[in-house]
Amino acid sequence: MRILGIDPGIATIGFGLIDADAGRTQLLKYGVITTEAGLPLAKRLLRIGSDMEELIAQCKPDVISVEELFFNNNITTGIAVAHGRGVILYSAEKCGVPLFEYTPSQVKQAVVGYGKAEKRQVMDMTRRLLKLKTVPRPDDAADALALAICHARSATSLLQRANLNVKQTI
Amino acid sequence: MRILGIDPGIATIGFGLIDADAGRTQLLKYGVITTEAGLPLAKRLLRIGSDMEELIAQCKPDVISVEELFFNNNITTGIAVAHGRGVILYSAEKCGVPLFEYTPSQVKQAVVGYGKAEKRQVMDMTRRLLKLKTVPRPDDAADALALAICHARSATSLLQRANLNVKQTI
Repeated sequence: MRILGIDPGIATIGFGLIDADAGRTQLLKYGVITTEAGLPLAKRLLRIGSDMEELIAQCKPDVISVEELFFNNNITTGIAVAHGRGVILYSAEKCGVPLFEYTPSQVKQAVVGYGKAEKRQVMDMTRRLLKLKTVPRPDDAADALALAICHARSATSLLQRANLNVKQTI
Repeated sequence: MRILGIDPGIATIGFGLIDADAGRTQLLKYGVITTEAGLPLAKRLLRIGSDMEELIAQCKPDVISVEELFFNNNITTGIAVAHGRGVILYSAEKCGVPLFEYTPSQVKQAVVGYGKAEKRQVMDMTRRLLKLKTVPRPDDAADALALAICHARSATSLLQRANLNVKQTI
C-alpha cells in the first residue's frame, strides 16, 4: 500500500511517501510544498492546489493520511492553515484518493506507542522505522512521514486491509 | 461592473450577482450553494469548488467580493468555514477573477453608512438599494448581495474604476 502523508499548512506543507506491506515500511520520497509569505492568500491557495494535484499525479498514492487541525494560541495562523487544509482535502477528493485523518496523539500512539510522546521521540522513531541515518528535514516533511507511518500501523489501515482480503477471497 | 458577492460557509454559501454602474445598482441573480451535513468534509469541499467554478462560468463576474472571516464562539464551526472559504478563494483565483475582501463592519459602513449597524438594517438597505419588495432569502444570499453592494460603493471599487479610466484614456 502506497501512503502519502501530508502535514497541512499555508506557508509550508510537508509530504512523505512510503510503501507499507506486511510490516515492511519503505521510504520513497519526501519534501515540502512552499508558498511565498508576500503573496495574496488566494494566490497561495492556488499554488497549494496545483502543487498537490501534481504531487498526487506523480506519487500515485493508494491513500492520503492528513493531520487533523487543532487550534493553538495563534488563531490568525490557525485560520490561514485551515484555508490551506481545505484546498488540500479538496485536491485529494478531486483526484479520487481515499483520505484518512489522524490527530497528533493518534500519530504519537501509532509511531511511538504512547499518545503523549514528545515530538523528538516521534521524529527519532520515524527515522528508525524508515532506516535512515538522520531525521528527515525540514520538520514538516518528517511530520508528514510520521502521518504516513501512522496510517500504515493504525487500526483503520488494518481494517481496510482486512476488507480488501475479504473482497479478494470472494 | 458585474460583481459577485460571496458569503462563505461549509453548509450554506450565499451568492448574489449585481451590475453596478454610475451609481445605478441592478440585481441579476442570487441564491445559495449547499452541502449535506452527513457528507465527509472533503466531499463537501469538492462540491463547493465545482459549484463555485460553475457559478463563475455562468455569471462571468468582473470581480468577486467575499467576507473576511472572523471567529465567533464556536471554533469547530469556524475551522470548517475556513476550510470552505479556502476552496472559495482557490476557485476564484483559478478562474482568474479579481478578489476583494471586506470585514462585516466595512459592509455595514458601505451599505448602511454606519459600521456598527444591526443586521436587519443591512438587510433592509440591501432590499431598498436593489428595489425589492421583500428582503432576499435565505439570509446567506442577502449577506452575499450586501457584500456585492459593499464593493460597488467602496473606496477600493472607486479606485479600481479610476485606474480603469486612466487605462482607457491612455
